[in-house]
Amino acid sequence: MRTLIAGIRQLVTPRGRGPVGGEKMNSLFVQDGVDILVEDGRIVRIAVGIPTRGIDNTIDAAGMIAMPGFVDPHTHAVFAGTREDEFLARVRGVRYDGGGILETMRAVRAASEETLAANARAHVRRMLAWGTTTVEIKSGYGLDVENEVKLLLALRRVRRNVPTRIVATFLGAHAFPPAMRRDDYISMIITEMIPTVRRRRLAQFCDVFCDEGFYTIAETRAILRAARGAGLRIKIHADELAPSGGAELAAELSATSADHLLCTSERGMRLMQAAGVVPVLLPGTAFTLHTEYAPARRMIALGLPVAIGTDFNPGTCLIYAMPIVIGLAVMRMGMTVEEAITAATLNAAAALELADEIGSIEEGKAADIILLDVDNYRQIPYFFGHNPVRAVICGGKTVYRAR
Amino acid sequence: MRTLIAGIRQLVTPRGRGPVGGEKMNSLFVQDGVDILVEDGRIVRIAVGIPTRGIDNTIDAAGMIAMPGFVDPHTHAVFAGTREDEFLARVRGVRYDGGGILETMRAVRAASEETLAANARAHVRRMLAWGTTTVEIKSGYGLDVENEVKLLLALRRVRRNVPTRIVATFLGAHAFPPAMRRDDYISMIITEMIPTVRRRRLAQFCDVFCDEGFYTIAETRAILRAARGAGLRIKIHADELAPSGGAELAAELSATSADHLLCTSERGMRLMQAAGVVPVLLPGTAFTLHTEYAPARRMIALGLPVAIGTDFNPGTCLIYAMPIVIGLAVMRMGMTVEEAITAATLNAAAALELADEIGSIEEGKAADIILLDVDNYRQIPYFFGHNPVRAVICGGKTVYRAR
Repeated sequence: MRTLIAGIRQLVTPRGRGPVGGEKMNSLFVQDGVDILVEDGRIVRIAVGIPTRGIDNTIDAAGMIAMPGFVDPHTHAVFAGTREDEFLARVRGVRYDGGGILETMRAVRAASEETLAANARAHVRRMLAWGTTTVEIKSGYGLDVENEVKLLLALRRVRRNVPTRIVATFLGAHAFPPAMRRDDYISMIITEMIPTVRRRRLAQFCDVFCDEGFYTIAETRAILRAARGAGLRIKIHADELAPSGGAELAAELSATSADHLLCTSERGMRLMQAAGVVPVLLPGTAFTLHTEYAPARRMIALGLPVAIGTDFNPGTCLIYAMPIVIGLAVMRMGMTVEEAITAATLNAAAALELADEIGSIEEGKAADIILLDVDNYRQIPYFFGHNPVRAVICGGKTVYRAR
Repeated sequence: MRTLIAGIRQLVTPRGRGPVGGEKMNSLFVQDGVDILVEDGRIVRIAVGIPTRGIDNTIDAAGMIAMPGFVDPHTHAVFAGTREDEFLARVRGVRYDGGGILETMRAVRAASEETLAANARAHVRRMLAWGTTTVEIKSGYGLDVENEVKLLLALRRVRRNVPTRIVATFLGAHAFPPAMRRDDYISMIITEMIPTVRRRRLAQFCDVFCDEGFYTIAETRAILRAARGAGLRIKIHADELAPSGGAELAAELSATSADHLLCTSERGMRLMQAAGVVPVLLPGTAFTLHTEYAPARRMIALGLPVAIGTDFNPGTCLIYAMPIVIGLAVMRMGMTVEEAITAATLNAAAALELADEIGSIEEGKAADIILLDVDNYRQIPYFFGHNPVRAVICGGKTVYRAR
């Protein structure tokens, strides 16, 4: 199957097979008037004027900007129930302490796998309309073996029903379930959940909410060592609520990513940089909770390959849209548009260990491409809230078209 | 022509034929399972189980929430050129001083009436997809007789080509054109522009940018008195950049609305309340410029009928979406969802002297109605950035459907 994406007004993409850090984040490859040849879902040629002979299918991209599909490297998009009451209470001044996770846990335990899959599918489809072609989704609202497995099985169902690439993360250590001793739950994670996740191949990553009031450094270390031993890649919810040493631990364990990082120390940032940990920043959550933002500029100055994501979840951020996250990264974290695009594509792919496969438009990578109707890519944050996505291509097939 | 909007899951609307102020803003009329009967574009009956006999057309609203179409009472949506470079420079720390208006003026003077109309039409259509069925649009980027008239004639063209109700405002006093004496320009506004606007029926309102660095109180008074004498209703850009007495002047002149009001004094608010001036708050601009927000809570405490709008313009706010403005009103100005919805519909209609015609779903009013796919109206700010609009009905006709 040979597909030609024809007549692209301007191609805009970072380049590389791994994360790019520091000032390299600021340089995008830009080329006018190109076509992209796709064979069996993979980009095989990018050039001006590719002949149409032997082409099975042509996608008209006339007048459009082509960019790599967005990669959203951090969401909690499989759940039941909504928490607008908590959201509105917080606006009136009630502080976020993560307690709402247990409310969602109760709704998830009461929901069927089918319902959870249908909910997640609806969220993933809305994300697709905003250009997200790969999304990471965490469990973490089950908090016992049966319900964590149910969430991850729901994700498996979703994967069969959407064109989006879904990366599953096991986050049993998201909170502590009620009526259970803390150590007993951690022991359950290590001796029952992680082996089950491994045996049934339910997730690619294991993550822990390491923070004040959640999992301690020692607990996080124990869980993630077990996960690594079971062949899972690891991530850490680090330093969101307090400077609790999460970044340092991510470096110690060579985690793939450390996420949130609002309160991270200079030492933590330097250690992450040395250890090759991708910092995943989630400005939508800082926006929603009205807190300080993560120190993106300092991280880039230290050479770190910053990634950005939505953190879509029912408590602290209901933003589906990577273009809005790019807007917040530019307007509130002081990132350049070029850095924000790199963070939302190639570096986000690296935060999922997928930078050799997606995250840029280059020969050999999967043809996950979005077509945008802005005049130039610098308008993405400027038209804040506008969805610039006209069409979404996954593996060379058009899977979404705006009306 | 009799149309039935059938099977509405929940009707949500403010009620009244004029603005509602203070605590009345917080109470919406909510009814489950109703139908709406429309005759010749007007709502004639709202009830449970309206018989389908004699109906020419049925709009299926099953499962949807019905609300009045949003009224955006303050935009500058007719212009040429974009200013993303200025936007990005401001993010890097360059302060907004309104100077970019002249950049847009140059682009507008170089553009044809057709181009300006095409640009505005595109903006109005995007707004329609976010549920805006009535929009106020100001001139103000021409700054001479020929080009101000061209902008208003472009709006007349747009009005013929979109289902949206467009209210035109003459804002010749938006800035001072280069190479012209200040007094000469004001004299041109009063003796040439306003009479032309009147004679050719180009606008319903006259507005002045009354602020530090722009028009003084005395200049604003002179222009608006002339406008009133010519039969135009009046509005004031008041106290955006500094406490410059705009609110007090709006009260003195019984302006229909005073807009922005970030720096308004307690006295100004009390005078507006006594004089029946509608305060139009524009949180998207405060968000974009990262300034303080207008004191909405204080205004509501004083009984003022707060309205909200986008301020869509090429310099300081490119937000099309009233749902995003509602989100900002709730998250950043401390308004309740109910107050924000009232502000975006009935009070916004009052800011355009249209509260007897639109702004609520009530018998006798125009059938400008939007159908939303949220579970309940409290989710509008919660799903920040999501477009909840599934269908838009103007005058009883479906004019937009989401895919």
